[in-house]
Amino acid sequence: MKLLIVGGVAGGASAAARSRRLSEDAEIVLFERGPDVSFANCGLPYFIGGEIAERKKLLVTTPELLRSRFKLDVRTGSSVESIDREAKKVRVRDLDSGREYDETYDKVILATGAAPFRPSIPGVDLPGVFTLRNLQDTDHIKERVDRGVKQVVLLGGGFISLELAENFVRLGISTTVVEKNDQILTPFDKEMTQPIVEELASRGVKLLLGQSAEALEQTAEGLVVCLDSGKRLPAQLVIFGIGVRPENKLAVDAGLEVGPRGGIRVNDHLRTSDPNIYAVGDAIEVKDAVAGDPTQVPLAGPANRQGRIAADNIFGRSVKYRGTQGTAIVGVFDRTAAMTGASEKVLRRANRPFRKVYVHPTHHAGYYPGAEAMTLKLLFDPTTGQVLGAQGVGGSGVDKRIDVLAVAIQAGMTVFDLEEMELAYAPQYGSAKDPINMAGFVAGGLLRGDHPQVDVEAALAAPTAERPFLLDVRTPHDFTSGHIPGAVNIPVDDLRSRLGELPRDRKIAAYCQVGQRGYLATRILLQAGLSAVNIGGGYKTFKLFQPPDP
Amino acid sequence: MKLLIVGGVAGGASAAARSRRLSEDAEIVLFERGPDVSFANCGLPYFIGGEIAERKKLLVTTPELLRSRFKLDVRTGSSVESIDREAKKVRVRDLDSGREYDETYDKVILATGAAPFRPSIPGVDLPGVFTLRNLQDTDHIKERVDRGVKQVVLLGGGFISLELAENFVRLGISTTVVEKNDQILTPFDKEMTQPIVEELASRGVKLLLGQSAEALEQTAEGLVVCLDSGKRLPAQLVIFGIGVRPENKLAVDAGLEVGPRGGIRVNDHLRTSDPNIYAVGDAIEVKDAVAGDPTQVPLAGPANRQGRIAADNIFGRSVKYRGTQGTAIVGVFDRTAAMTGASEKVLRRANRPFRKVYVHPTHHAGYYPGAEAMTLKLLFDPTTGQVLGAQGVGGSGVDKRIDVLAVAIQAGMTVFDLEEMELAYAPQYGSAKDPINMAGFVAGGLLRGDHPQVDVEAALAAPTAERPFLLDVRTPHDFTSGHIPGAVNIPVDDLRSRLGELPRDRKIAAYCQVGQRGYLATRILLQAGLSAVNIGGGYKTFKLFQPPDP
Repeated sequence: MKLLIVGGVAGGASAAARSRRLSEDAEIVLFERGPDVSFANCGLPYFIGGEIAERKKLLVTTPELLRSRFKLDVRTGSSVESIDREAKKVRVRDLDSGREYDETYDKVILATGAAPFRPSIPGVDLPGVFTLRNLQDTDHIKERVDRGVKQVVLLGGGFISLELAENFVRLGISTTVVEKNDQILTPFDKEMTQPIVEELASRGVKLLLGQSAEALEQTAEGLVVCLDSGKRLPAQLVIFGIGVRPENKLAVDAGLEVGPRGGIRVNDHLRTSDPNIYAVGDAIEVKDAVAGDPTQVPLAGPANRQGRIAADNIFGRSVKYRGTQGTAIVGVFDRTAAMTGASEKVLRRANRPFRKVYVHPTHHAGYYPGAEAMTLKLLFDPTTGQVLGAQGVGGSGVDKRIDVLAVAIQAGMTVFDLEEMELAYAPQYGSAKDPINMAGFVAGGLLRGDHPQVDVEAALAAPTAERPFLLDVRTPHDFTSGHIPGAVNIPVDDLRSRLGELPRDRKIAAYCQVGQRGYLATRILLQAGLSAVNIGGGYKTFKLFQPPDP
Repeated sequence: MKLLIVGGVAGGASAAARSRRLSEDAEIVLFERGPDVSFANCGLPYFIGGEIAERKKLLVTTPELLRSRFKLDVRTGSSVESIDREAKKVRVRDLDSGREYDETYDKVILATGAAPFRPSIPGVDLPGVFTLRNLQDTDHIKERVDRGVKQVVLLGGGFISLELAENFVRLGISTTVVEKNDQILTPFDKEMTQPIVEELASRGVKLLLGQSAEALEQTAEGLVVCLDSGKRLPAQLVIFGIGVRPENKLAVDAGLEVGPRGGIRVNDHLRTSDPNIYAVGDAIEVKDAVAGDPTQVPLAGPANRQGRIAADNIFGRSVKYRGTQGTAIVGVFDRTAAMTGASEKVLRRANRPFRKVYVHPTHHAGYYPGAEAMTLKLLFDPTTGQVLGAQGVGGSGVDKRIDVLAVAIQAGMTVFDLEEMELAYAPQYGSAKDPINMAGFVAGGLLRGDHPQVDVEAALAAPTAERPFLLDVRTPHDFTSGHIPGAVNIPVDDLRSRLGELPRDRKIAAYCQVGQRGYLATRILLQAGLSAVNIGGGYKTFKLFQPPDP
């Protein structure tokens, strides 16, 4: 077996190591265009900001180690230019010498990755304008920073841009993030990004939504980013982080099938349309594990697993890739946003019926010092209760809950299973009723009909005349500090004795701070014969849908 | 419906609140012997140590709040003395006035809890000798501490004793833990407690294993704890934490069935042998969710869920309790030990076939600062790969992995599912190959036969003549710093060229630091036609089975 692997970072390096473990005899050649293999791309922003102090920490492994330990023929600085599928050989160019040569194969794994997108706008190639993909980009950005940067403009409000923003602020650089959509972190639902927007603002990051760059100019003082809104942003450093495109040229030129968004098409065994060529990582189109649709998810975890699975299949095992759930996480200063499975907007786009709940628990027992707030959003099937997706935002412990929900989705579990989950509880770690249980209780109550709920957007979307009677059951103090416009305040503890103040001919939408007292209020009203629903997630959820306080 | 609930802490308070949400009309009486309802028992050690500064933080709710918000008839200081099942009434004693009266019922929920065990040894009731169950015990201990305690002896090396040990050290008190078994934290397998033993030692806690108190004496200088080993430990404060016994007197006197260990027997709906009486919490016998056997698991999380389920069943819903997995966690200074499902010793006792693996990953990407080490032990079915149990010990992130594995057990997932889990990865939170994936890879490789492994105890248990040839594939530096006695060192990177040095007529057991290079070495040896196995979990696992360095 002679196996050629094109690309030596996450998917390619995993495939190579796995292949060697499966076969001592195989001839395995790993081609990598750059000088490094298997570097820690997710660490690049933190090296720029100095949080990771040593560059060598980013080298997960080295060509030398892959050679000595895995007996791999590692060829860095080597670009695979074309594939001759008929003759089963590839054309390789040594980038140092310019020499070209052919290499034959039995099987190929394409792990070519994805390249950051640079739009065709004037000035896009000016010095000081970068994308961030590899250690070389990182070195160039760091060098620029070391020469003195006062202002940075980050184009795109995705994961990498926000990680970079944190790091530039750490370096004392004035930072602006420009995002053409009306929200940052577009895989998330917009309201769940609100706490991150607030975090950015509180740290001095300027965020411009609904705008994009249409040109970059070089002036005597430095660069200027010209936005379509007419704004002109001076900067000494500009980084594009507006998404990536699969590096599919090799595949396309070889006549392999690619999907509509450019991802190399593979079957469940990660085989391309050519039975001798497999593909893994950011370059491929994957199956969405929840919706089943083809999609593209450029993440390191799936790339690693795919590399392993492609190797398994090449060395005679029949292993299926199960698809990608899109489990993702980002830290922005002291806050974390994480998600798994389908978002609300993906479900809407797919016309997939769903219900949702929000809970706002603390990450461990409230009586133990240091409890941090979080918001969890849970999306589930309205009939079966199957968990379809989840998003979390807050401080510590968001990662844990999203991991638990990622497993629940993988297992096909329902919200009723979440109610019963037996998670580890001591006051430093969780609560006797964990946030996951709480989300399950709220969702389960909704599906069982115990707990009629209305989504806050839905309650307020109706014309005023058709809106439900808004009942705020919090304390008068809470109410005065801020409430949903038009609401009337009767604290839940007084509700039983003040039922006469409520309309009997109109639906009542009760709410409290997070949904719990609103739930009790709804139960009281319903059992008293009134028509009532609870506004899911209460006032805190309402606030997520409001523009942040200026 | 007239519902009496006996006991107002976790299970009782949950049942009461749930009952009210299900029925506004029910008459619900909550009897509690003490002055408090629903206090945070898991927080008591931290209040003693001052980590939780305010006593009122421990009051999760108050009788007043339960009255006003849930319209409950809360009677604190009220002891239910007997149940007349024929007449459907209970005898209640008001502990303040001594007055006794009858209260009729339609249904009863027993949430009487469990009492810390005090052995019948001389001096057990001396002043200064305590158990820790409620706020009153806490107040007494705290008062004693405030009067000046130089030495404390904690009898029992369970969860609460270790939490107390941390808190007494925080207060500058010399602390000794005495445990009659040969290990602390007996629900865990012994080797997994080794890092906690080391943590205790490094913090100055004296630990005496295999010993127990046979008497307590009062001397002029204070108390003396006399151990069966002959040791005499002076102390000003002694706390028994040697387990709890279900408070079953009420149930037993009423003729309800109890199990062999004293737990009140309930069916899947948490109903006792009397159809009008339910029981929940630490007082009952539960079904082990993995083994199916009856057991007793005094934990707050299950108690809360049981309270809810008992209420559901009483108010006309048919809801089953799924059993208890025994998910538990304890923090001891900066270390965490957590477990879920069956332990190795439980599986051995039940003659249940299993395999196990150990992994020693870091809690997030090693290239990001602050990565902390952990050890995970995974127990699984040797045929299907179903996950049966897991234990973790280390720093940050142990809680997350045990929660993920708790869900995997609940869902009936296999080690092959762990390989595919798509967990949230950014360098601050995890790794592209999460510890869970790593455990899955090792276990999956074992079951697929790719990765023949031997347990380190098994490898070393054989008489020397029958032992495998021990091959240490780490660096010479690692080897000189410490190795398994009798091992020969050939670093994995040299192995292919030094195969001739190895015996062809004897099984070779390879090992490295954590198992990964040992795995590659095993693959190399096997493919070279030698007979080889990897010592699972490597030298780090070997060390877990050795007595800690003195």
